[in-house]
Amino acid sequence: MSNVPPAGQRERLYLYDTTLRDGQQTQGVQFSTAEKQQIARALDALGVDYIEGGWPGANPTDSEFFDQRPETRATFTAFGMTKRTGRSAANDDVLAAVMNAGTPAVCLVGKTHDFHVATALGISEDENLAAIKDSVAHLVAQGREALFDAEHFFDGFKSNPTYALACLKAAHQAGARWIVLCDTNGGTLPAEIHRIVTQVIAEGIPGAQLGIHCHDDTGNAVAGSLAAVDAGARQIQGTLNGLGERCGNANLTSLIPTLLLKPPYAARFETGVTQEALADLLRVSRQLDDILNRVPIRAAAYVGASAFTHKAGLHASAILKDPSTYEHIDPALVGNARVIPMSNQAGQSNLRARLKAAGIEVEAGDPRLARILDVVKEREDQGYAYDAAQASFELLARNELGLLPQFFEVKRYRVSVERRKNRYDQMISMSEAVVVVKIGGDKVLSVSESMDESGTDRGPVNALSKALTKDLGPYQAAIDDMHLVDYKVRITQGGTDAVTRVIIDSEDGQGRRWSTVGVSANLVDASFTALLDAINWKLIRDGLAPVTR
Amino acid sequence: MSNVPPAGQRERLYLYDTTLRDGQQTQGVQFSTAEKQQIARALDALGVDYIEGGWPGANPTDSEFFDQRPETRATFTAFGMTKRTGRSAANDDVLAAVMNAGTPAVCLVGKTHDFHVATALGISEDENLAAIKDSVAHLVAQGREALFDAEHFFDGFKSNPTYALACLKAAHQAGARWIVLCDTNGGTLPAEIHRIVTQVIAEGIPGAQLGIHCHDDTGNAVAGSLAAVDAGARQIQGTLNGLGERCGNANLTSLIPTLLLKPPYAARFETGVTQEALADLLRVSRQLDDILNRVPIRAAAYVGASAFTHKAGLHASAILKDPSTYEHIDPALVGNARVIPMSNQAGQSNLRARLKAAGIEVEAGDPRLARILDVVKEREDQGYAYDAAQASFELLARNELGLLPQFFEVKRYRVSVERRKNRYDQMISMSEAVVVVKIGGDKVLSVSESMDESGTDRGPVNALSKALTKDLGPYQAAIDDMHLVDYKVRITQGGTDAVTRVIIDSEDGQGRRWSTVGVSANLVDASFTALLDAINWKLIRDGLAPVTR
Repeated sequence: MSNVPPAGQRERLYLYDTTLRDGQQTQGVQFSTAEKQQIARALDALGVDYIEGGWPGANPTDSEFFDQRPETRATFTAFGMTKRTGRSAANDDVLAAVMNAGTPAVCLVGKTHDFHVATALGISEDENLAAIKDSVAHLVAQGREALFDAEHFFDGFKSNPTYALACLKAAHQAGARWIVLCDTNGGTLPAEIHRIVTQVIAEGIPGAQLGIHCHDDTGNAVAGSLAAVDAGARQIQGTLNGLGERCGNANLTSLIPTLLLKPPYAARFETGVTQEALADLLRVSRQLDDILNRVPIRAAAYVGASAFTHKAGLHASAILKDPSTYEHIDPALVGNARVIPMSNQAGQSNLRARLKAAGIEVEAGDPRLARILDVVKEREDQGYAYDAAQASFELLARNELGLLPQFFEVKRYRVSVERRKNRYDQMISMSEAVVVVKIGGDKVLSVSESMDESGTDRGPVNALSKALTKDLGPYQAAIDDMHLVDYKVRITQGGTDAVTRVIIDSEDGQGRRWSTVGVSANLVDASFTALLDAINWKLIRDGLAPVTR
Repeated sequence: MSNVPPAGQRERLYLYDTTLRDGQQTQGVQFSTAEKQQIARALDALGVDYIEGGWPGANPTDSEFFDQRPETRATFTAFGMTKRTGRSAANDDVLAAVMNAGTPAVCLVGKTHDFHVATALGISEDENLAAIKDSVAHLVAQGREALFDAEHFFDGFKSNPTYALACLKAAHQAGARWIVLCDTNGGTLPAEIHRIVTQVIAEGIPGAQLGIHCHDDTGNAVAGSLAAVDAGARQIQGTLNGLGERCGNANLTSLIPTLLLKPPYAARFETGVTQEALADLLRVSRQLDDILNRVPIRAAAYVGASAFTHKAGLHASAILKDPSTYEHIDPALVGNARVIPMSNQAGQSNLRARLKAAGIEVEAGDPRLARILDVVKEREDQGYAYDAAQASFELLARNELGLLPQFFEVKRYRVSVERRKNRYDQMISMSEAVVVVKIGGDKVLSVSESMDESGTDRGPVNALSKALTKDLGPYQAAIDDMHLVDYKVRITQGGTDAVTRVIIDSEDGQGRRWSTVGVSANLVDASFTALLDAINWKLIRDGLAPVTR
């Protein structure tokens, strides 16, 4: 970025991560202590400034995690709420549990919306002001960095600006390092956030002490956070992959590249995230999905698998001339990569780029290019989907180009599924497959059943896959490190009839991952086709030569 | 909305849907003609103003769709590009194919960024201006409503504002009804969009003729669209569920509720979407996911399954006092519903309402309600999905309530798939199934194979289904009018292992349609479970009594 002033001449912007606290409010998410440790380390390596670890005392996992939290460069922060009424901050046992976690920083949430003070707390407005002031003062007196999360601030400001501001001032005067403006219900739009943050700063709370905490209930959490920064706020709270209550929190995985790479921010600010750490962003995002066993969102900004996928034919041809024609950043900056998929919308230039990526050079105008496109189109009419199955596309193209080695031939297979009662009157099921393959001149019969180590029947496709990969003679070493990582089935229209499309994702010991497709009215047959493609692709990639005799 | 002026006193804002064109650029998406028709009807019922159907002539599906497009209230629009250089608009065959679709409106994309004119087109800047002007004038002369999609406009404006504006003016002067500012690469931030749209209007292009077309590459497409409207643009282009090239287009499913429900927009504008249609938004969103066999995104704004789920304990208890404490809108306005964890009272009243809908009355406080909730939770942990399979849910509840008749018992089944060469050396496949059922005291053996009338092998599940429904003795008449209308398979997580979830939709002669679910590590077994549920539900609904002996 040539127009970025050197470090030291830019303002500091602080990133506050709440994946471990607000992120845990995601439906279906429950971190273990070990997972929290792993995520905290990843956040620290990424370079966020604050890691909010949870609410000590609120549940056993959070308490245990604070006892075993890793050493971090980032400021470790415990979350809690302002003291309850009718006792002092020092005598509130809920607050005491938060303090006892011993973190250098503590973030306390408190009410700032008059409606909530009355409805949810049932106390007077003055009692609430006193709770904020006393709680923050207590943190400061104990030598902690104090953060005040102003809950429902924007709704409160719209309803009663005088009272909402009085709450902020109470925290500010009591010594809070940060006053964080929370759009708790997620309904405030970016333009309103900009206007209200501007007013708050005009009322005397310095922007250098203001944070923003947005939720994505209108799909604007990232933009709302940027609007607050535009207005002068200097801390952004968010989560990795946008985890969080309801629609999630502001997505730091989207915000960080924008702050580092987009001139309006890169030129004005610096953060704790380096360009090297940014190049690891995709990996960190996937790591979190892996921990949570969630399917990564393909369309995610910057890190999605589709984020730099150019499907339109016109786009793909321009990309060949200059990637900046249809890319807003270089995908490598965030650890991502360009993808030019095949589909019946693609032109010849798209096709050449795709072949080149697979190591196959074909001259422009080669008549075989048109033939490949015809075959792709014909197959897609039958229900194949090559933009989701790049490895199968490569095999198809190699076949048309005369570059497809014939490693082996499947002569026949048979698979059976049986379900019956065992002698204890329990229903059990079992699948068995026989595959007959000819390699060179040798005929090989293999049989496998579908039980895994735990005695679970994994079904007919599993049995077939095992039989097929049981003994491929001279190729066996190359396929031994291959395994199936995903298996997707959908019913689609092939010609006039419904057919089954199977897409298989495979992975090998070198970390390569590839997708293959099979289509048939018979689900097992469609799966077998995709399996065969997966194996053939792997043998080609490993540079094996076909056995002949 | 009490502060909304009556209709006629508000400005009109136009919604332009490009799900069928830009949405088809989503990786893995390929609509059939029938699917395009279904989506167009859903868009029309929703109330969008323009439906962009595709690019006639670009591929066979798009051409076929325009020949068979449904009648709509919305303005049907064909997409294409400005004429190529070296011929007149009237003599450009690519443009002629677009015109021949005969739509009332035509939207042509053209270059406005000097870099692209040179790099992608390789023509002079003046030639490009002439292409825009002549193409738009041609549409107008042919009596079409003309739209000009100003490709890469924001990047172009930042690089060479004079030329970018000259392109807009060429289209404007030639009579374009709409000039659509496209952030083609998706890298422009909302604040920049606001600033640039403001400048364009100051240069004399009326806001009432300006549209905005955003992509989500920084996670800001919704906010960018709103920023353009804030600055004066009056048409928004987007897609349902945010489908589209790379990270997708501006998500109309998020934008529409914001425009109708949020005071800054609701007070100023009216759109073609009524409050009644808005209440159908979630259903339309799910319908599109169903067509594409995509898993709906739980955290989606407004329509996500988690959008009104209150996991935090403090939130849930406040919600019970007043839902507005932690909800920015009433979920029913968009057809969504509040979800509070099953274990509490709210879970039980939901359950009673669902049972009542199935004709089963259970008193509040009945201890069996808690037991049903426990079983649902346990099964959903295993991978079952009862929201999508109401008939299976009903059977589960009946079982816990002692209201599930035992019509028959499956003793065992066996299914085999074989693939081999026939005597003409062609590979053929065949599936065969045997099912053994006990009805009353009688044992019935049935066998079926999977060939349909055309000689196609429909696979093992088809063979099993045929065998199971071949002879169910006294129940046969009730199941003869039943048929399978959809079959969906997904790999999901059950406990620690991947399992297969099968959802079957069935229909009968009375037009009833019901969904059942089966889960197993074995795909055939999961399918069989769902089939059994489908039959049992039908027998209950038809009021049959179990045979006993």
